[in-house]
Amino acid sequence: MVTDKPAVILLSGGLDSATVLAIANNKGYECHALSFEYGQRHRSEIQAAKIIANHLGVASHVCSTIDLAAWGGSALTADIEVPKGGEEDGIPVTYVPARNTIFLSHALGFAEAIGSRDIFIGVNAVDYSGYPDCRAEFIDAFEKVANLATKAGVEGETFSIHAPLLHLSKVEIIQQGQQLGVDYSMTQSCYEPQACGVPCGRCDACRLRNAAFDELKCLDS
Amino acid sequence: MVTDKPAVILLSGGLDSATVLAIANNKGYECHALSFEYGQRHRSEIQAAKIIANHLGVASHVCSTIDLAAWGGSALTADIEVPKGGEEDGIPVTYVPARNTIFLSHALGFAEAIGSRDIFIGVNAVDYSGYPDCRAEFIDAFEKVANLATKAGVEGETFSIHAPLLHLSKVEIIQQGQQLGVDYSMTQSCYEPQACGVPCGRCDACRLRNAAFDELKCLDS
Repeated sequence: MVTDKPAVILLSGGLDSATVLAIANNKGYECHALSFEYGQRHRSEIQAAKIIANHLGVASHVCSTIDLAAWGGSALTADIEVPKGGEEDGIPVTYVPARNTIFLSHALGFAEAIGSRDIFIGVNAVDYSGYPDCRAEFIDAFEKVANLATKAGVEGETFSIHAPLLHLSKVEIIQQGQQLGVDYSMTQSCYEPQACGVPCGRCDACRLRNAAFDELKCLDS
Repeated sequence: MVTDKPAVILLSGGLDSATVLAIANNKGYECHALSFEYGQRHRSEIQAAKIIANHLGVASHVCSTIDLAAWGGSALTADIEVPKGGEEDGIPVTYVPARNTIFLSHALGFAEAIGSRDIFIGVNAVDYSGYPDCRAEFIDAFEKVANLATKAGVEGETFSIHAPLLHLSKVEIIQQGQQLGVDYSMTQSCYEPQACGVPCGRCDACRLRNAAFDELKCLDS
């Protein structure tokens, strides 16, 4: 059990990152959560992130505002329709240009400033939408950048980008979270929830989530 | 001469990035400038960036607000004194954790969204402050990330991170800019200018700049 070791956790408010926060907490890290209001269509996920951070416990939680809608290029940040007809071939229009690179780079600055060398991100490359920045080779390449870009890296310290869900299925992720006490009813995955927060049930994120809960034969709560 | 080829230019408002914008313009790129109000002490550089963008000409100019002061860790973003006694050994306290990684990651998102595969940054590793994210190995590593992180990269296109000042001295940079018509009186390098915009003349950025203009035996204008 690691203690008093600070880590930065990218926390979107979704199922995956909530599980990652529970994993990092369980490993004994002092968890500093980082969320982004980036101009996303589903910005109510920020509220979910705050509730999850409070539920699972964090040492601090920074909600950063950045404007990726300034250039758009995604169904989540521009006036492009969110697909709701099931998964199609190729990288879907919900891909947000360079999103995980941007999130990780801010996490790197946050981590270095607070003396943390550990960054956690909830990417996974099994039940996902084919986003390029959810793959192991991307995470490895970013880790190299982290150690070249920073004063700490130059001085011989090592940043680690932890992606504990990378090779898990959605079912395995939920099972792990349930063992760690994650209340998934607090999380929000939907790309386009109704104003009252009810998920659409038809976007790719809802479909992946619902299929996993169906397979587990348990309620999404 | 390249024409109608969009490029994203990181434009701080300082001497180096103004020169880079002039270089990219001269190569025939359609230049899209990107500046950041990041909580820096010397945020008047944003005003300089706007003036330079207008002076040299750009297709668009996005000024993004991001909050690196939320975690600080630098004399430029936190309540740490800006050194004014001349350069010392090691990486100075004006280093901002992960700043160029953050700037490049936003530039990457901007570039991909507008169909650009070319990003320009004014780092140089000769007359500089020893910042780790101004070195060739960092730029090379980020370029690898860019091509792994993005839909365009996965689909076989290639992002290039151009750092045309990397191996130039400050004198050579100014000479190149003067040939391209850059009016350096519009640029701002000082880390802690007075309220009226007058540079302190004693911080590392002022010293590097003034030494170059002294060597060139020309006025800083």
